[in-house]
Amino acid sequence: MSYEETLDDILKNLLASIPEVQSAAIVSVEGLPIASALPPNTDETRIAAMTAAILSLGERAAQELGKGLLEQVFVRGENGYILTMAAGRNAVLTISTTKDIKLGLVFLDTKRTCDKISKIV
Amino acid sequence: MSYEETLDDILKNLLASIPEVQSAAIVSVEGLPIASALPPNTDETRIAAMTAAILSLGERAAQELGKGLLEQVFVRGENGYILTMAAGRNAVLTISTTKDIKLGLVFLDTKRTCDKISKIV
Repeated sequence: MSYEETLDDILKNLLASIPEVQSAAIVSVEGLPIASALPPNTDETRIAAMTAAILSLGERAAQELGKGLLEQVFVRGENGYILTMAAGRNAVLTISTTKDIKLGLVFLDTKRTCDKISKIV
Repeated sequence: MSYEETLDDILKNLLASIPEVQSAAIVSVEGLPIASALPPNTDETRIAAMTAAILSLGERAAQELGKGLLEQVFVRGENGYILTMAAGRNAVLTISTTKDIKLGLVFLDTKRTCDKISKIV
């Protein structure tokens, strides 16, 4: 099984285990797409660039306010959530969810997914 | 009681009710300081500008990923959390906390604080 297939499977498993997760993408820390499970008509490059921007600002905020290394950025909109978190040193996982999720469960499952990704990328 | 004193009291009450909250600041949506309860040697202007940057990126991310109006951005670093949320249409509340907080409790208390702020600003 190729490197890319394995990552695709990890994302598919995440989406299957939490139905409220609408999309998931693995992005390099530079903001380039690595793997993704996105709905049709979603621009992977755009998601990747947005993820990198969120990450970069989160890192600056964490540093300026003495919070050390960035672990996670979480954006809540009126229609749902965007969650971006480090998956090892080289990659970042971004997921988008509906509004009606159990946050604790999502945090736990995405953490496990990031551990898996970090062993591959 | 003046406008500023009232906002200061709201922030002081928030800090008193959750000991893990280290600092709190109310910032205009343009990124200018309105009121704050910050530790010594903390630059209020810097916090305000950082808050505005977080907010602006959060808004863009929420919009691009179809999440509607931005409600909250939450940054987790290895040493603690930064939480930024809308307090009505004109102001934003940013708080900084230690690592060992109960997130559910903080979300609830900051939501109440934002409701109070939105009635004043």
